[in-house]
Amino acid sequence: MSNVHPFDPLSPAEISQAVRIVKNAIPHEPLAFRVVTLLEPPKSQMLPFLHAEHAGKANDTNANTPARIALIHFNRGGGVSDLCEVHVNLDAQTIVQERSLAGRHSFQDTTEMQAMEKACLASAQVQDALRLLQLPEGAVVQVECWTYGTDGMNDMRERIIMCYLYMSLTPHGDSNHYAYPLDICVEMLSETYSVKRVLSLPLGENDRFGLVSEVGVKPFDRRKIHRSSEYHPDLVPERRTTTKPYRVVQPQGPSFHVEGNLLTWEKWRMRVGFNFREGLTLHDIMYDGRSVFYRLALSEMFVPYGDSRAPYPRKAAFDLGSNGAGVNANNLKLGCDCLGHIKYFDGVHHNMHGDPVVLPNAVCCHEIDDGILWKHTNFRTNNAVVTRSRVLVLQTIITVGNYEYIFAFQFTQDASINYEVRATGILSTAPINLDESVPYGTLVAPGVMAPYHQHLFSLRIDPAIDGHRNSLMVEESHAMPLNDPAVHNPFGIGYTTTHKFVETESPLDIDIARNRVFKIVNENVCNPISKGPVGYKLVPHPSQMILAHPSSYHAQRSEFGEHAVWVTRYQDGELYSAGENTMQSAGGEGIASWIRSRTSPLSVRDEDIVLWHTFGTTHNPRVEDWPVMPSEKLLVSLKPVNFFTRNPALDVPISSQAENQSVLVGESGGSTSANPCCPKL
Amino acid sequence: MSNVHPFDPLSPAEISQAVRIVKNAIPHEPLAFRVVTLLEPPKSQMLPFLHAEHAGKANDTNANTPARIALIHFNRGGGVSDLCEVHVNLDAQTIVQERSLAGRHSFQDTTEMQAMEKACLASAQVQDALRLLQLPEGAVVQVECWTYGTDGMNDMRERIIMCYLYMSLTPHGDSNHYAYPLDICVEMLSETYSVKRVLSLPLGENDRFGLVSEVGVKPFDRRKIHRSSEYHPDLVPERRTTTKPYRVVQPQGPSFHVEGNLLTWEKWRMRVGFNFREGLTLHDIMYDGRSVFYRLALSEMFVPYGDSRAPYPRKAAFDLGSNGAGVNANNLKLGCDCLGHIKYFDGVHHNMHGDPVVLPNAVCCHEIDDGILWKHTNFRTNNAVVTRSRVLVLQTIITVGNYEYIFAFQFTQDASINYEVRATGILSTAPINLDESVPYGTLVAPGVMAPYHQHLFSLRIDPAIDGHRNSLMVEESHAMPLNDPAVHNPFGIGYTTTHKFVETESPLDIDIARNRVFKIVNENVCNPISKGPVGYKLVPHPSQMILAHPSSYHAQRSEFGEHAVWVTRYQDGELYSAGENTMQSAGGEGIASWIRSRTSPLSVRDEDIVLWHTFGTTHNPRVEDWPVMPSEKLLVSLKPVNFFTRNPALDVPISSQAENQSVLVGESGGSTSANPCCPKL
Repeated sequence: MSNVHPFDPLSPAEISQAVRIVKNAIPHEPLAFRVVTLLEPPKSQMLPFLHAEHAGKANDTNANTPARIALIHFNRGGGVSDLCEVHVNLDAQTIVQERSLAGRHSFQDTTEMQAMEKACLASAQVQDALRLLQLPEGAVVQVECWTYGTDGMNDMRERIIMCYLYMSLTPHGDSNHYAYPLDICVEMLSETYSVKRVLSLPLGENDRFGLVSEVGVKPFDRRKIHRSSEYHPDLVPERRTTTKPYRVVQPQGPSFHVEGNLLTWEKWRMRVGFNFREGLTLHDIMYDGRSVFYRLALSEMFVPYGDSRAPYPRKAAFDLGSNGAGVNANNLKLGCDCLGHIKYFDGVHHNMHGDPVVLPNAVCCHEIDDGILWKHTNFRTNNAVVTRSRVLVLQTIITVGNYEYIFAFQFTQDASINYEVRATGILSTAPINLDESVPYGTLVAPGVMAPYHQHLFSLRIDPAIDGHRNSLMVEESHAMPLNDPAVHNPFGIGYTTTHKFVETESPLDIDIARNRVFKIVNENVCNPISKGPVGYKLVPHPSQMILAHPSSYHAQRSEFGEHAVWVTRYQDGELYSAGENTMQSAGGEGIASWIRSRTSPLSVRDEDIVLWHTFGTTHNPRVEDWPVMPSEKLLVSLKPVNFFTRNPALDVPISSQAENQSVLVGESGGSTSANPCCPKL
Repeated sequence: MSNVHPFDPLSPAEISQAVRIVKNAIPHEPLAFRVVTLLEPPKSQMLPFLHAEHAGKANDTNANTPARIALIHFNRGGGVSDLCEVHVNLDAQTIVQERSLAGRHSFQDTTEMQAMEKACLASAQVQDALRLLQLPEGAVVQVECWTYGTDGMNDMRERIIMCYLYMSLTPHGDSNHYAYPLDICVEMLSETYSVKRVLSLPLGENDRFGLVSEVGVKPFDRRKIHRSSEYHPDLVPERRTTTKPYRVVQPQGPSFHVEGNLLTWEKWRMRVGFNFREGLTLHDIMYDGRSVFYRLALSEMFVPYGDSRAPYPRKAAFDLGSNGAGVNANNLKLGCDCLGHIKYFDGVHHNMHGDPVVLPNAVCCHEIDDGILWKHTNFRTNNAVVTRSRVLVLQTIITVGNYEYIFAFQFTQDASINYEVRATGILSTAPINLDESVPYGTLVAPGVMAPYHQHLFSLRIDPAIDGHRNSLMVEESHAMPLNDPAVHNPFGIGYTTTHKFVETESPLDIDIARNRVFKIVNENVCNPISKGPVGYKLVPHPSQMILAHPSSYHAQRSEFGEHAVWVTRYQDGELYSAGENTMQSAGGEGIASWIRSRTSPLSVRDEDIVLWHTFGTTHNPRVEDWPVMPSEKLLVSLKPVNFFTRNPALDVPISSQAENQSVLVGESGGSTSANPCCPKL
């Protein structure tokens, strides 16, 4: 395995091998494999390995190579109960650790989901309820499975899937059925694929849900039928024809190089990883030979809905922990999701039998032009020097039922990293009476209510700023006091910065009024120019934190949602800020609990620390978000701050017409300008 | 003049004509023309005109056409005192209004500035001081003129220019002299181009400035000589060669159409304006035949420095009011400042004699691709529908001495408008002793200190959301109360929005913790789907407000800097939120003063209102910002919120490989993907 890097995801062969080892250990028993993924080596093993690797000591490297370990979750008996976890050493071909997760639930598998949809529709109870609705001729009923957002109304030992029902009124497979949310929902039992209860949904602010068998349900209101909610081009004939083609041409190919999972571009070097849960992960990120980050990945995301009426408090999705960003990654298509020269990375997962399944084109890698990187015009000579910003993008797009998320790490030539999230797709909808409205939702079509909700993302940032002993310094800008004899501020215009180091694990908040800046610094490395520590700063996305009451299940389960920034001491295995098993979790197992659980407060000063950034949107839908939502962009950045001794992008190529070949509008054939921007070039 | 639109800037012929009329009125006297620009017609005249124009009533239009009026500022006697303002009616060829601005100062003219540099260097006093510095062999001294930031130390009736001295140590004209700030500065008198005082600068935290003739000045410290501060390619030989060419090809040309200053693109329609002060202005902005904004432009920007030591409190630049974004606009070069098909707009200004001067390529217009606009994958059919976001960019770049600003209005296919500001260029620097540091600056090179400063922008937004009677509604998201019998929130997860209308002119602040949203709505137009008023929301750029003490000249002069959002009732002529004449202003003439000056509070409810957004950065320089700064991006957006009855970008073309012709990395010759993204297309 010498050509396998410890950060490489498990190969199909490794998955098969790991599964075989488990099956051999537990013969004569059906096993449902939920998770077969790489258990990343302990950092204590990786550091010497990387040290040797960076030094180019190949032999040492092999000697130091950590064992390949597979992390496996499976249900004994093949159902959904009796969940077990084992670690399989693929080098030694043995199970090295096992523990029971009895009482916990695995994430919602798409195969299971589709089977659940069928079971729901096939049930007599559901069919009876549908008959009561007296749906229009030709209605095609669709079932949407939702993970069960804990609300305390059911025994959590029972794995329940919530099925919400919709219909479409055209036979077209891509008709938007979210335009017709039906008035009933179904509680399904995962173990038996059987109906627990069929419920009627509230249709007004003061309406309450109930058992259809008791309260019944009204026939579908024909006045709700409309034609404006389709999005598929087959069903939206009128299309604008004014947008002329726009192509990206790279005559010499891309500027990046890929060797397996090792990606180099400009002065960046990193390893691309992927797993069923986080999707895209990045490892051992270096710039110009200097270590910057050990690992970057989205840790979790939580989407709690604000509709207070049962059963809607159950709509609270952990899209990573309970659904999986990796397994829901789109198969990206050339020419559709990006322009220019594109390299795709596949993901590898498996089915419930443990057979490896390739997820093609799960990640794309390409370059974009981001306008002007830096410019200066010397007004004395009228000479302008312009450089353009080339950006490397690593993008993955996930579909979680109705909704899409576009996740992109962007690397810039000035040594910054951006993490961009775009939210798009179709709003989750609920039925409402035509003449009613509710204070926690927007009417987006006749009888269609799009409930308020929040998207809360937790980005895990494992820094290695010139080494693994880092500190978090909080800088603020404050006006100098007035009329203080000890301070020279005669004109009242002076301001200075304060710098506080965070000493122990804790949450922090954004404070724009004080221009609070979060700097990850290495106190052992001094910048010879600034005379201070080298560092990178987090440029956060300021967002409203979770609105659910601290005592609610939503808040208890998504501990990261209470504060914008958290700093912890690195611990192997502490990857998921809302806990490892979010499916029907009851709370008390996330980042706040970790910190609380330490026997004594852990120092984060000059230690191996991890930064966690909570950001998102309070999404109170607009009508414009319907029937499909224009991308809503969120951006987080990591920027060098006194890490270099000057602008690291000083040496990028000067922008010139000879290279860029732009076309002057008005001139025929697009002749080039008479005055090139940089006469000396 | 029937083909001239009332929003068209003055043509060279109109400028000549206006100047001639003034010269004829005031013969036998030298006049220095500072301002000759269009006085935009009163809105009361424009509304009927636009109404007829939109209705295609050409004849009516001519009948309603407001007179062309030139706004002119000139100094009688040809010096800098006795400033006068006149309005010239170009149709009637008469002066229709005049007033004396005696005691006020015009903005800093670049011609004047360059003459001032020469005068400063030529002065014996300055030469004596330079001799004391014993500069190295071959040093080339450069003078930087700064407008005088009022600090109360000089009589404001005297127009003073601050000259800071620098040197370069190479003969190359584009050598970065900001790397060698000299220890002296000079107060120059504008009227006589003569030296008022030569001052020594403080070189340490406890150092104070003084008259060189009294305190002297030390010889230049040779240990400060270094080679790492150049930016021009001639002087930075080592350049990365890894960035491969990247071109934008538009085989069918751009998607926009330009007729004079009328710009149409996709469903947008607007008029492009330009003037010496604001630079790019936009007028009568419509989407799909509906009125959205009457006028958009940057109103003012203020750059106060945080160094409390005299004379640095004088470093406080109003880059629009005292320098001019228009007159300092770069001559944009094809292939350097943007890619693809580019249309340029010229600006028109004049010299002090009143002769028209064309500012070529002051604004560029082009398209960019901004990634995915919307996407949905139907997991049942595996059909993905993707649209790409095409964006129209109107960009202007200004150079104010050492610094550059890139201003861009971006129009999107989903009916949003972004205003992007990029800050780049070279940091303003001050000398410092090698062994010292100060708490209000960063050391960026040996003996070079980059002082902390703020960039505060004031964006003026004159809305016309489906008409000119609009209101400002402030929305917040609040958790529903817990254990309140009057509220149904049994699970503690409910949240709703509050909506407050702003009734009278006032400043407002951003509140992220409450997800405060600023919605400009038209209460007279109801969205048939949402059942609420149509509107656009301001997506602000959350920023720290001005740090200078409210009693300071900085705060008094830049009234807009105290709050993030202001709403006022529209008044003709209220364009500049820090006042009309910022040059050595003493304060009390900006947006807060307007509001205070109303005889009674003006209603902004269902009235013709104007929104003003203050945003910026507290820029505490990084070493990475030296010797030239990577662009720092700021973004403000205006987005429809329940303005349309569905996603206005629903009809954009579906992204396809046939159109985009991307190239798969790894395949030779870039063959296209086997599976197009939208099989049905």
